[in-house]
Amino acid sequence: MNIPSANSIKEAHDKITRYTHRTPLLSSSSINKIAGANIEFKCENFQKVGAFKMRGAANAVLSLSSDQLKKGVATHSSGNHAAALSLAAKIKNVPAYIVMPKTAPSIKKKAVGEYQGKITFCNPTQEAREKMLNEVVANTGATFIHPYDNYKIIEGQATCVKEVFEDSANIDYIISPIGGGGLLSGTCLSANYFSPATKVVGAEPAGADDAFRSLRDNRIYPSINPETIADGLLTSFSEKTFDIVRRCADRIITADDSEIIAAMRLIWDRMKIIIEPSAAITLAVVLQNPGMFSGKKICCILTGGNVDLQKLPW
Amino acid sequence: MNIPSANSIKEAHDKITRYTHRTPLLSSSSINKIAGANIEFKCENFQKVGAFKMRGAANAVLSLSSDQLKKGVATHSSGNHAAALSLAAKIKNVPAYIVMPKTAPSIKKKAVGEYQGKITFCNPTQEAREKMLNEVVANTGATFIHPYDNYKIIEGQATCVKEVFEDSANIDYIISPIGGGGLLSGTCLSANYFSPATKVVGAEPAGADDAFRSLRDNRIYPSINPETIADGLLTSFSEKTFDIVRRCADRIITADDSEIIAAMRLIWDRMKIIIEPSAAITLAVVLQNPGMFSGKKICCILTGGNVDLQKLPW
Repeated sequence: MNIPSANSIKEAHDKITRYTHRTPLLSSSSINKIAGANIEFKCENFQKVGAFKMRGAANAVLSLSSDQLKKGVATHSSGNHAAALSLAAKIKNVPAYIVMPKTAPSIKKKAVGEYQGKITFCNPTQEAREKMLNEVVANTGATFIHPYDNYKIIEGQATCVKEVFEDSANIDYIISPIGGGGLLSGTCLSANYFSPATKVVGAEPAGADDAFRSLRDNRIYPSINPETIADGLLTSFSEKTFDIVRRCADRIITADDSEIIAAMRLIWDRMKIIIEPSAAITLAVVLQNPGMFSGKKICCILTGGNVDLQKLPW
Repeated sequence: MNIPSANSIKEAHDKITRYTHRTPLLSSSSINKIAGANIEFKCENFQKVGAFKMRGAANAVLSLSSDQLKKGVATHSSGNHAAALSLAAKIKNVPAYIVMPKTAPSIKKKAVGEYQGKITFCNPTQEAREKMLNEVVANTGATFIHPYDNYKIIEGQATCVKEVFEDSANIDYIISPIGGGGLLSGTCLSANYFSPATKVVGAEPAGADDAFRSLRDNRIYPSINPETIADGLLTSFSEKTFDIVRRCADRIITADDSEIIAAMRLIWDRMKIIIEPSAAITLAVVLQNPGMFSGKKICCILTGGNVDLQKLPW
């Protein structure tokens, strides 16, 4: 299978529309004033399961053959992809087997349980995840749906920014958080096909800056002992996501945790919406780089809103 | 001046449109499932200053003569009306003198300061507020804009539900929190003029149930030592609001603080939006009265989103 085309992204969009929300673009005059820019926020915190991951998961599950579907799906995930895959499987009435680090936030564990995903816990390393996943797949015959090294996932995530370009024009920069690169590569493709003048920027936690270094040195670095509050951005590029991002993204910019928390608080205070730290990094990057973003029209993707309300970072 | 007419509410709406947001109606399939009802939430937490109060304040300020305007405006308020009046005055470049209980949440004090309102603190009783207010008015010549015993305020608040009826049809119940009754009486009028088949319900904290008792006994009870987390709902009916609510509301239903907090948490968790306790009471009332609301189409007004994020009630 080749890199997703404009047509395959359009088909993915048609396929998932019934099972996803078309999320709004919101803006805040006070945040614009602070940033000195015109920022539109794509509110995927309002998406089904509270994160953009529902797009890719729905597209992946809906693209399986009926024989594959019967045995269910499996994945490893820090949380939102797991919840999304569980819900997508539930929609098709098939099992979802989820391998999850035992350190995942309890709200994300709970969400998977709510959508009837079957959880197996593992240690919080990429290696441990993959080993446990292989065992689960061997035992069940389920189809492994990688959280991002999968073109059906990338197509699904690409529908997010396709909607942005349908709803808004003349965007100078579109900023997507980067963990494993599923959303960022989907963003790259949709920008390339639907708004080629828009520059794509990845926003990455300084404490998990493997993608920044990978792009700089043109090789994939694994994510080793990442330390950041942005628990959705702990993974590293895969071959498929690196290949797309490397060719189409303008750059990756990092922000540290204190900047992420300040941006998160600003959005909560001014916009009265709940976003998770992994989403706040997009605004953190804008606020830290006025030289680049001042006076520009920017879209920040607010990727999710799954926060443990008992453990807020302020 | 007489009770506001349909036309005066329409005029108020035209007048304030430039200075207010047309807030969205949102819904949540998971909350609908829990409630067994079809609920639309009118999101005034997204309103300017984070609360519906901007509507009434803007209408009141924009209705003053230029001679009145020059000397500014004054009010006593537990917070959102104070912030709204400060912003409305700032728009017209005149001073706003705010008498505020010293116990008001710091986020609300801060908001008034941000809009350049001039604060005088008083003890947290209705009597102390009024005494201090009289002094301020005597010293400055400012026009007193009562938070709700003022038809211009009531007209402004009525525009909230006017928008609801423009954006949605066949609503069985519209539920508004009740403190002093400004929003509830505006809701009564708009329902009466624009959707007479819709029943209006007031939602009141059990620890501040003066309005419930006032309606039951057909006389205004003052609010004495109210105890509730819903800090926007501590005041009591005025002559003007009681007169309208008494004639047009279906009933007032109370909920206790634990029910308010549970409803607030549910909205934060499921809808990823930030609302204050005073707003959550509308959903609390629905969830506590399934016999009345099950299977119905309901609009709950989410009146505001000004919460101290450092002091959440869970």
